[in-house]
Amino acid sequence: MSDWILTLSCDNRPGIVAAVAGRLAALGGNITEAHQFDDAMTGRFFMRVAFELEAPVEALEEGFAEDVALFGFDWTLRPAGAPRRVLILVSKFDHCMGDLLYRTRIGELNMEVAGIVSNHPSEVLNLTLHNGIPYHHFPVTRENRREQEARIKAVIEETGAELVVLARYMQILSDEFAEYLSGRCINIHHSFLPGFKGAKPYHQAHERGVKMIGATAHYITGDLDEGPIISQDVEHVSHADTPDDLVRKGRDIERRVLAQAIAWHIEDRVLLNGSKTVVFPK
Amino acid sequence: MSDWILTLSCDNRPGIVAAVAGRLAALGGNITEAHQFDDAMTGRFFMRVAFELEAPVEALEEGFAEDVALFGFDWTLRPAGAPRRVLILVSKFDHCMGDLLYRTRIGELNMEVAGIVSNHPSEVLNLTLHNGIPYHHFPVTRENRREQEARIKAVIEETGAELVVLARYMQILSDEFAEYLSGRCINIHHSFLPGFKGAKPYHQAHERGVKMIGATAHYITGDLDEGPIISQDVEHVSHADTPDDLVRKGRDIERRVLAQAIAWHIEDRVLLNGSKTVVFPK
Amino acid sequence: MSDWILTLSCDNRPGIVAAVAGRLAALGGNITEAHQFDDAMTGRFFMRVAFELEAPVEALEEGFAEDVALFGFDWTLRPAGAPRRVLILVSKFDHCMGDLLYRTRIGELNMEVAGIVSNHPSEVLNLTLHNGIPYHHFPVTRENRREQEARIKAVIEETGAELVVLARYMQILSDEFAEYLSGRCINIHHSFLPGFKGAKPYHQAHERGVKMIGATAHYITGDLDEGPIISQDVEHVSHADTPDDLVRKGRDIERRVLAQAIAWHIEDRVLLNGSKTVVFPK
Amino acid sequence: MSDWILTLSCDNRPGIVAAVAGRLAALGGNITEAHQFDDAMTGRFFMRVAFELEAPVEALEEGFAEDVALFGFDWTLRPAGAPRRVLILVSKFDHCMGDLLYRTRIGELNMEVAGIVSNHPSEVLNLTLHNGIPYHHFPVTRENRREQEARIKAVIEETGAELVVLARYMQILSDEFAEYLSGRCINIHHSFLPGFKGAKPYHQAHERGVKMIGATAHYITGDLDEGPIISQDVEHVSHADTPDDLVRKGRDIERRVLAQAIAWHIEDRVLLNGSKTVVFPK
Repeated sequence: MSDWILTLSCDNRPGIVAAVAGRLAALGGNITEAHQFDDAMTGRFFMRVAFELEAPVEALEEGFAEDVALFGFDWTLRPAGAPRRVLILVSKFDHCMGDLLYRTRIGELNMEVAGIVSNHPSEVLNLTLHNGIPYHHFPVTRENRREQEARIKAVIEETGAELVVLARYMQILSDEFAEYLSGRCINIHHSFLPGFKGAKPYHQAHERGVKMIGATAHYITGDLDEGPIISQDVEHVSHADTPDDLVRKGRDIERRVLAQAIAWHIEDRVLLNGSKTVVFPK
Repeated sequence: MSDWILTLSCDNRPGIVAAVAGRLAALGGNITEAHQFDDAMTGRFFMRVAFELEAPVEALEEGFAEDVALFGFDWTLRPAGAPRRVLILVSKFDHCMGDLLYRTRIGELNMEVAGIVSNHPSEVLNLTLHNGIPYHHFPVTRENRREQEARIKAVIEETGAELVVLARYMQILSDEFAEYLSGRCINIHHSFLPGFKGAKPYHQAHERGVKMIGATAHYITGDLDEGPIISQDVEHVSHADTPDDLVRKGRDIERRVLAQAIAWHIEDRVLLNGSKTVVFPK
Repeated sequence: MSDWILTLSCDNRPGIVAAVAGRLAALGGNITEAHQFDDAMTGRFFMRVAFELEAPVEALEEGFAEDVALFGFDWTLRPAGAPRRVLILVSKFDHCMGDLLYRTRIGELNMEVAGIVSNHPSEVLNLTLHNGIPYHHFPVTRENRREQEARIKAVIEETGAELVVLARYMQILSDEFAEYLSGRCINIHHSFLPGFKGAKPYHQAHERGVKMIGATAHYITGDLDEGPIISQDVEHVSHADTPDDLVRKGRDIERRVLAQAIAWHIEDRVLLNGSKTVVFPK
Repeated sequence: MSDWILTLSCDNRPGIVAAVAGRLAALGGNITEAHQFDDAMTGRFFMRVAFELEAPVEALEEGFAEDVALFGFDWTLRPAGAPRRVLILVSKFDHCMGDLLYRTRIGELNMEVAGIVSNHPSEVLNLTLHNGIPYHHFPVTRENRREQEARIKAVIEETGAELVVLARYMQILSDEFAEYLSGRCINIHHSFLPGFKGAKPYHQAHERGVKMIGATAHYITGDLDEGPIISQDVEHVSHADTPDDLVRKGRDIERRVLAQAIAWHIEDRVLLNGSKTVVFPK
């Protein structure tokens, strides 16, 4: 018995679930978890199915090819337990990176960290947790951005990283690089988007006098603060909180929001729906 | 086209989803929402399927009878938009009752209030919202409990109430009556169960010095504070909150927790799983 | 013994607390609750003191006048238990209004509703709770806005209303009227400001694909969505929530955020600090 | 100018605030933050005052001695910025310990970790963050508990540790040791007390079918699950969460609840009030 995860999306029409479930049943597969969503506004259908299968998966793929042709599926099929290769990009603030490494180490996040890339040397970090993980110090200046991004791209391709995480990586990506990373790069933005886009969101929040602050994990697209949102969370703050207090409280929110988004991504629980996401939590 | 909601539970085995989805697909039905859960600890399988069907539902029921026999389904099938008949029991505190009536009036809760039963006359209430809804004042004493419960039972049966809501009904039910109501009666308990069972939970919470208080909506069983939990919520409190402050804050929590549980029940989103519930929110 | 609430703000300097506490102690007053805040960024000091006093309050005011001159206090002094006269403005959505009336009726909000003003006749409302409270139907058109606002102003002045609540009052106020109401008018905005200013915020939120929605209670200034924020709250939402679902979930948030802001205002717990507020919860 | 924090508690009577503020004002002190609480149920008064003072603190202490005699103050006076010496006790689960070390390292928790004591060797931990911090492996058996506790006590006294943190230290303390640590030892309990006292609370929570789980930080007293509560927090869970999922979600709650409690303790924001606490957050 092995475990698989199938995701698919297509234009909605009757019979999709029956087709997929029928294929699985015919091969003796057992569905262990299933989610679906019909977007009535766009007419798109989204599905995630986790299943056990004794038969070789090729048998399933073969028959399934007919359904793909019939329904026009966009689909993925992966073994459930396989760790994902992940590249982490970080600048000076390493609380998110440290949190991800710890969660990986104790088995909470099923991923293999293929490397850490930073525009700063590892000495500026507070953590020594990254022992053994390749650390790439790629300094960036206004002039060398393209070269620096090319170096990151080379690491992604050499390591076969499936996911890139911007764990408080404080550099603006070029449009080309953002496009290259599209759908496989998660950023943590330190505000409750769409409020306080841009720089220094905690200072903006303090200036405006809001009573809650938040963080947002989203996929990267060309517009750094406008990609499809995966998860968000907030906390109450008060008039007595200084910008520094907001930064401190924000660290906790950022860590858990980013870890949540990555966990969902790794388990194929996030499907893209235009500029939005469909998230199927357990 | 009409909309239906199917719920089922049975011992888990491969092929259930395929069987159900196949029946629907064969009749041209379109699944609009589906949830399932395998309880690995008990081996039980739970499913809720919302679907549109042009064919007469009898055609579905006919074929479905075979699956029921094969898989041993416990199942329900209801038209999606049909309002549920609900009887509300209340004592002196009417904030939950008023909230439910308002939500019903604006169409948020798809139910028809078949009547209100109280052990107090309607004059003690703060609300006049119940105009037009039959109000039954059934006083209760230590001696007449059985007779009083018989009167409530008569109202349930005369009105065909499908759900009974204990909206801060401050009377202990007899074991027989609790058994009679089993699985179709929702109580709001003014504590975060299993903490502070029993009387005066807000005073217990204050005495213990907790930093959060909560409320719990659950189905009634013989043990008033031990029935299957449907929904819970909490709020932060501080040392400065008096028991009266906790009561006040609690009212808000109780209202939203009870309304949430009822909304889920009405939409067939809550399935019983022994002493627990399976809840499939939208 | 009677209970009083003193609020004050001034430029910060040593000795303020000693001066105030000394005045009270000299008259045998007993401080029952005290809060203060030094805004390090602006150099302003804010204080709220609740106290019991056996001596006539005039004795306190007399001596206190010296401190006012010395420190340049902006201050208010009110009897603690006196209900505030409040005028409620509403359009078609009456869930906030109904909630406020209920909380007032059961004694949770210490206020006297001086009247309800709407641009719609009372028949469009779902509530009949307002029996006995004067209901003013002042229709508004593009042409008669100033006249309509003049009629509202007349009601405010005739009734001596100290606070005006925009309980989902869906009209843009003129700059003059907003100025007139400045600091004594609370609006509930159905978004988590500063996200989704302007019309139809729930639809904006759905369009953007956010994972949480919120509501904001704030004082009115010229810019309807930019006044000093008093309270905010949010709830998680999912991809499956339609704009209508967001509206429904939003009603719950709006009710509790607005009620909280009004409760704080009534108890003199909110002090203005430029474009922000200082809030001293119990 | 130096910064100080004064806490005091005493039986309530008029004039306390005036006395304290008067002493400070006489020496040119400037109050930067002040909180107070009158417990109407017990007649006790609690106060925390942060202030700047140019004069030597001895001048304050001298005069203040009269007030102490007059009012019967229980009091503490500490320099605001001085780090606290803290001893961390841990067993196998090191997520709380790692979190505390990281927060200390980045300056979020103003403490100096005097050592780590564990009943397991450091090899069982996932962290190497404790480099440089003395690590004491004191194995414990049913027979040697008293000796082991004596060894811990020796470390406390040698290092001058002011606070002991049980960061998921899974050993029952003897009554004598608990008594010895009373008021200066914070435990994180992995449940929302008073629900699920005792062993395996997440498994208990799963068994009961609750819809939220939580964690509780509290001072140690003789009864491990009954000490005065400092902070609590919770998260929603669902029927689909296994006990392992609850353990995983719980780790996040435990980390932030414990860090919050320690931060408050270090800043003298927690005062004991019998079996409860008074907490003055910023």
